[in-house]
Parts: sequence; structure tokens; C-alpha cells
Amino acid sequence: MSVERLAINQITVKAWSFEETVRGLARHGIGWIGAWVGPVEEYGLERAAALLRDHGVRVSSMCRAGFFTGKNPDGGGLDHDANRRAVDLTAAIGGDVLYMVSGGVHDDLSLPRSRAAVVEGIAELVPYAAAAGVRLAVEPLHPMMCAERSVTVTLDQSLDIVERFDPAHVGLAVDTYNVWWDPGLDAALARAGDRIIGYQVCDWLVPQPHPTFGRGLPGDGAIDIPAITRAVDAAGFTGPIEVEIFNEKVWARDPDDVLAAVVAGFPHHVLP
Amino acid sequence: MSVERLAINQITVKAWSFEETVRGLARHGIGWIGAWVGPVEEYGLERAAALLRDHGVRVSSMCRAGFFTGKNPDGGGLDHDANRRAVDLTAAIGGDVLYMVSGGVHDDLSLPRSRAAVVEGIAELVPYAAAAGVRLAVEPLHPMMCAERSVTVTLDQSLDIVERFDPAHVGLAVDTYNVWWDPGLDAALARAGDRIIGYQVCDWLVPQPHPTFGRGLPGDGAIDIPAITRAVDAAGFTGPIEVEIFNEKVWARDPDDVLAAVVAGFPHHVLP
Repeated sequence: MSVERLAINQITVKAWSFEETVRGLARHGIGWIGAWVGPVEEYGLERAAALLRDHGVRVSSMCRAGFFTGKNPDGGGLDHDANRRAVDLTAAIGGDVLYMVSGGVHDDLSLPRSRAAVVEGIAELVPYAAAAGVRLAVEPLHPMMCAERSVTVTLDQSLDIVERFDPAHVGLAVDTYNVWWDPGLDAALARAGDRIIGYQVCDWLVPQPHPTFGRGLPGDGAIDIPAITRAVDAAGFTGPIEVEIFNEKVWARDPDDVLAAVVAGFPHHVLP
Repeated sequence: MSVERLAINQITVKAWSFEETVRGLARHGIGWIGAWVGPVEEYGLERAAALLRDHGVRVSSMCRAGFFTGKNPDGGGLDHDANRRAVDLTAAIGGDVLYMVSGGVHDDLSLPRSRAAVVEGIAELVPYAAAAGVRLAVEPLHPMMCAERSVTVTLDQSLDIVERFDPAHVGLAVDTYNVWWDPGLDAALARAGDRIIGYQVCDWLVPQPHPTFGRGLPGDGAIDIPAITRAVDAAGFTGPIEVEIFNEKVWARDPDDVLAAVVAGFPHHVLP
């Protein structure tokens, strides 16, 4: 099956509840879900685990914990409880990869201090996650998100963080939308090797329709995704490939149509 | 005078014609203009040169030539004539720095091939520019513009290009909006040294109001501009500091008010 590595991040079918998403994925022969804390919590942990089991859908990743610097989306600061709860949720539904969003720039506008806070925050969370069997995935976000969401913006910078920790507990997440522009991309992926524990794909639309929701289905934009998949695979990654799309037009479509399009395009627009 | 290094790029006062801009700058005690090809051409070369001379306003830079890869804004491909005309215009009004916009991704989506085309394009333009006494400024644009406008996105990558050429003919341009997020920023500026021939500033607004027009007045956003100015100066740059703002709300304001705000904020929000 050419879609055996295909995972769908729940945000891609935003109109669906967690239950609708799991049932939908099973209906389309998709074996992996990238889950989000909120919908899982809302549905209930034990029910979620049972639903996934019943439909043969596994968890490719959980999104998200972090915000070790800058503001949380709720407007507050570092939320230790929320981060530990995200670890618990990930383990409870059988996941073992939890994505970190580093957080944005401190009020004092110091990037060095903001970046130091990220390392401290991860170091503090690692023992708790390790005890739960959950690996923390450090993800560079696109530099356009540096101010508000992630002072971690390149693969090499993220690897500098990842390499401080035990590979059993902390790894690297690669998202085509975030890294495709990087002149050091191929070298950084080779450097990453088996530290890559998550791989997400979507395309970069031209023009970008929105400052943050400019992501398109693979094949619809400017990124040579198969070339990046080839480099990620060559580095040693063999896990699920998660399609994650933030785009209001995609969200307005019938999720069944979106899944059908992703499945049809996956061999040509994602696989090497 | 604390504003003796202040230059205003004409796009910052977009509602004004070239003549209004030069008169306005002189009125506010600003001695430098970052000019654009279109308005200068429209006003007339000799008239423009005379107007600048009469008002004691010098040209900090000309914007722009390039688009060596991908599509030109007019939808066409590489326009040799337009690039040479931009060189002529720069020299005719007494400027000696012409900004290059590299251009976006080729139709085949190959970044390596697109980037090679940039080097070839600059190499081809250098003799013509050198003969006119105009230096070509290679500028990394923010990675959010990689697809459509510039496959050149980091200072180090731009320096790799700049260092292929004679320092008398090709240099580096630094714009805070484009480079502030780079984890290698300080090291790259130190590496650049006296290859820096242009420095532009504006702030990164939070949230970004538009995919490309999200730039704010210095002090209004997330960038520690004085820290970057300090590093640029430490590298050896002593030239004008050009405030260039793409922002529809700024453009809707009375340009005299915008200039007064820039002048008032310059010592605190731009200078080290």
C-alpha cells in the first residue's frame, strides 16, 4: 500500500470532531492520526484510546506542549501543568511523540535569553516525559513565526538543542512548510540522522493567502516535497508522514473530499 | 545631529511623489533618500538629480534590480534591459548602491538551480554596473518571501555570493525585518565586515497584519533594532540607515506625521 506511511493531522480536517476524524481515517484506509490535546481531552482519554484501538488507527504524534518563552496562546506564561498533562494524554492514547512549540520572544526582545529559556524548559520537562515513555520533538517553525510562536527557527539550531539530550527522550521534528527555504536543509537533515522522530508535510501556497494559514495540499505550492522526503528517509527516518494543513479554504471543504485528495496525491506529491 | 545617518526609503511615504518626498525629507532635516526606479523614471532623470542637489538630499540606495530566477513582478522572466536601466538611473542621480532582489523559485521547484541562476545573473550584471560606478547590494529577504521574491534568505548564504566578487562592485545589504530571526545573525554580521554596503530598518509587528505588509515603525514590534545596529556598526558600516516600511496603515497616515515619528524615534529605537 502506497499510503501505509500516511498520517493525517487532525487540524487538516478541522471541521471534524476527534471521533469523526478517527472514523474518517479508517474509512479512507489511513492508519495514523496526528492528534491535538484539546479534542482528545474533550472526547475523554479512555474513550479515545478505545476508539483508536477499535479502528486500527495509531497516533503518529501529539500536538502540543511547550511555550517555554513568550506568551502562551492563552496569554499566560509557561504552563508547567499543561505541559505535563500533554505528556499524560500522549501516553494515554498510545502515542510516543509530543511536539514542542518553543514559544516567542520575551518582552525584553532578547532572542538569546528567549532561546536559553527554551533549553531550560525542555530540560525541565524531559524527566517527566521520559518516565511516561514519551519523546519530546523539537520542531523549528518557519522564521515568520519567530516573534509569537517559536524562537526556534532552523534545523541546525533545533539540533543544537536536541543533541543536548538522550536520543531516547528528545528528537527532531521536520515540517516541510517550516524548513524548505533553508539553504542548509540537506546538510542539516544528514546531520540529524536517526534523531528525526517526526515528519510533517504540506505545501507553500503562492501567493500566501494569510499570514499563518497559507498551507496547501502537497503538490499545490512551491515546495519540492518528494525531494525533502527523500532526504528525510536517507537520514534514516522510517516513520509515518503526517499531512498537516492550516488553510481556511481546505477547512471549508468536505473533509472526506480532502482526505480523498490527500490519498490520491500522496504517492506523487509526497513520497520520493 | 542624531539623525545625520537617517535615510528614508520612498516606499515609507508611498502617498508622496518623488518630488514631494525629496521636499518633505529636506523639510524634516533628513539628508538621505532610498529611491525607487519607477518614481525616478517618471519624474525624469535630470530633474531628479537637480531636485536632490537643490535640497541637499543624497541617495542612500536605489531599489531595485534582479529577479534573476522565477517570475518578475511583471510576470516575465529575467529582464536584462530593466536591470541595466536601473544601473543607469542609480548613477544618474548620484547613487552608488543598487539593491538586488534575487527572484523566486523556478517552475521546476529546484532551489539549487534557482540559486545558481542568481549567481549567474549577478555575475552578468557586474561589469555593466562596475563601469557605471554602481555597487550591487545582495540582500537576503525574509524566508517568507522565498517562493516568490528571493531564494536568497540568509546573511551567510548572501555572503557566499558576495564573496565571489570584487568588494568594489558587490556588497551585502542588511534589513532588520529580513534577518532579525537568524540564530547566526551576529556571527554573519561579523563575517560580513566591510562588505556591508546597505542597512535598512523597520520593525516586525505582532501580529503580522498582512503576509507582506507587516512592517512597522522602529519600536513598534518584536525586533531589538538598536542591538542589530550595534552589530552592523561594529562590523564597520558607517553609512546611512534607511527606514523602509511596507504597511498599509502607515501609508494611510499623513507622510509628514510619519516622518516626524521616525525622526523622534530614531535615536531611541534605531541607534545603538
